Amino acid sequence: MVSLPSSASATIDAPSRLSIEFGDRSYDILIGRGVLSDAAAWQALPRAECAVIVSNAVVAGLYGAALQGALAAHYRRVLTVELPDGEAHKDWPTLNLIFDRLLAEGCDRKTVLFALGGGVVGDITGFAAAAYMRGVPFVQVPTTLLAQVDSSVGGKTAINHPRGKNMIGAFYQPRLVVCDLATLDTLPARELSAGLAEVIKYGPIADADFFEWTERHVDGLCARDPAAIAHAVQRSCEIKAAVVAADEREADVRAILNFGHTFGHAIEAGLGYGEWLHGEAVACGMVMASDLSARLGLVPRTFVDRMSALCERAGLPVRAPRLDGPEQWLDLMRLDKKAQGGEIRFVVIEQIGRAALRAVPQTLVRETLAAFCE
Amino acid sequence: MVSLPSSASATIDAPSRLSIEFGDRSYDILIGRGVLSDAAAWQALPRAECAVIVSNAVVAGLYGAALQGALAAHYRRVLTVELPDGEAHKDWPTLNLIFDRLLAEGCDRKTVLFALGGGVVGDITGFAAAAYMRGVPFVQVPTTLLAQVDSSVGGKTAINHPRGKNMIGAFYQPRLVVCDLATLDTLPARELSAGLAEVIKYGPIADADFFEWTERHVDGLCARDPAAIAHAVQRSCEIKAAVVAADEREADVRAILNFGHTFGHAIEAGLGYGEWLHGEAVACGMVMASDLSARLGLVPRTFVDRMSALCERAGLPVRAPRLDGPEQWLDLMRLDKKAQGGEIRFVVIEQIGRAALRAVPQTLVRETLAAFCE
Repeated sequence: MVSLPSSASATIDAPSRLSIEFGDRSYDILIGRGVLSDAAAWQALPRAECAVIVSNAVVAGLYGAALQGALAAHYRRVLTVELPDGEAHKDWPTLNLIFDRLLAEGCDRKTVLFALGGGVVGDITGFAAAAYMRGVPFVQVPTTLLAQVDSSVGGKTAINHPRGKNMIGAFYQPRLVVCDLATLDTLPARELSAGLAEVIKYGPIADADFFEWTERHVDGLCARDPAAIAHAVQRSCEIKAAVVAADEREADVRAILNFGHTFGHAIEAGLGYGEWLHGEAVACGMVMASDLSARLGLVPRTFVDRMSALCERAGLPVRAPRLDGPEQWLDLMRLDKKAQGGEIRFVVIEQIGRAALRAVPQTLVRETLAAFCE
Repeated sequence: MVSLPSSASATIDAPSRLSIEFGDRSYDILIGRGVLSDAAAWQALPRAECAVIVSNAVVAGLYGAALQGALAAHYRRVLTVELPDGEAHKDWPTLNLIFDRLLAEGCDRKTVLFALGGGVVGDITGFAAAAYMRGVPFVQVPTTLLAQVDSSVGGKTAINHPRGKNMIGAFYQPRLVVCDLATLDTLPARELSAGLAEVIKYGPIADADFFEWTERHVDGLCARDPAAIAHAVQRSCEIKAAVVAADEREADVRAILNFGHTFGHAIEAGLGYGEWLHGEAVACGMVMASDLSARLGLVPRTFVDRMSALCERAGLPVRAPRLDGPEQWLDLMRLDKKAQGGEIRFVVIEQIGRAALRAVPQTLVRETLAAFCE
């Protein structure tokens, strides 16, 4: 079990600052509206000749100039690298675009990278920072709800391999995470819903009160009520920070953050990356993992119904694709990073607010697949 | 300055064991004849379903079966991945061969990788281990002199980029290094000489007595005298271990291990990887860096002559290629990882046994280039 801080009150006027503890690699998460364009947000970062903003065309068009302006106060050169958008491009050729540019521009090993965008930009930029000249500093500037509440915090970086998601990467912590809530105003509704999947995740695995809070506020979250969004980001980051500080390299407890992800990654890989958004696959995967938990006798069937209703209200899918039948599902899930010696392990809910990683009898997994696949 | 242990006596009969101190990532270097095929050498490694030997066709043909046999005592499955040989293949497509195989075989994140070969196999396997599922354990089993005395120790892993050597990689420590001196019996003479370049390096940067020892024993080393080879490997590993333990991520003192490498990397990149062996380029680069040190007034001209004579006796080149003239040299060296803000920095010898990293006036660098380039 991870001990969590008590929930802070929602902040929409003043930025709030959380700390994430990794000894000499500790860092802050700054949350607030408009923080991205405030030069003061960036002043404690390492000095360097050069800052490089990594983004995609859409996000760079919206926020690139503001970030560039704020960074110009601290760095003599501020370059921007635009990557192709989407999970399908979270691969080696895209990663190499960053290396090509850094080397063409003569960027040295003090260079600071800024990941401006969603989870794809954050994961790929983080891995670029981990590997360029064996490691340069980087900063997460997440502009999607999913990235703000999940992927930008905790230092997991990666690219995909055709045989599996996030198979090649590093645990590599950023120096700072800046969550500008104003960037969520321009987020497409489908992306907002995908981010809500990861918000919904934190209640069942770690905080029963927050689960009930999400049930009460899901409509407000979908309507982008600023106070609700601020609280959701703040509380999600608090929980994630507490979990990953307890287990940086996922030896153990950190695996609970993968609730829904074993089924979810199979959906993403089985349909081809980008067909479903990551958050959509996770939502469906969480309902399936809840069903599995109920089949194990850990939670009542009513919990599965509550999870399903909550995800549906958040605009998320709760029925799974068939793929090529249960064998393809099982093959894909055997490649999950939590698998050991060919045995698939699932994050199950033991009671609302508490999760665990378990090997599950294959008959039960097949029952869940039969119940959810079209 | 790094404090060094006093030189142990040469061991040719019983294996010796050095420790390299990185806190909870400390590990041993085991040096001896025939240790590779001794199952006892491997028994303290992490347990796993699967061990994967990464090698090339030549080395796997010579030592693959012996290692496989020794590992079979500890792992249920022992796979071998053969990579194409040579520095020209230290790139992404080759690295990806390892990932493809690990995923095709369903290797989980407990899998232990064994790098059986020279510096190319060690660097690429180490980076594969650093990145596969965000990090799996790995072991160095160096079979060249260069890898035994230098590249297998200290956790530098990398692949090359067309614009520069070792530009993409990680600091990632192995769990164990096993130097089987018997593998050097089959090493081609040119590769033995290349390894001697890195042996010769340790004297000028850290140990004046060892410099004189290499001058006295260079003929014995070229003749593969077992006692001389054993002492050279042992002392080189001791010095390297002391330097990298003091500065794992090359913030500072570790850079002295790059003596000769700024010029050397320019030769390798300028001629195309693989044209000169790494050790050959380093030898020539060390003589050039010694010349630069003399031009700075740090060491007498006689030291440059001694370095040049020693390298020549070891069968190593001491005249540099022209490339496309001094501008190409300078362009290539500006991409060196030690450069900062466009300023090239060189490891210079302050006195025999002591080195430092310094920015050097470009006029002096041009004088050295003019003196050495055909």
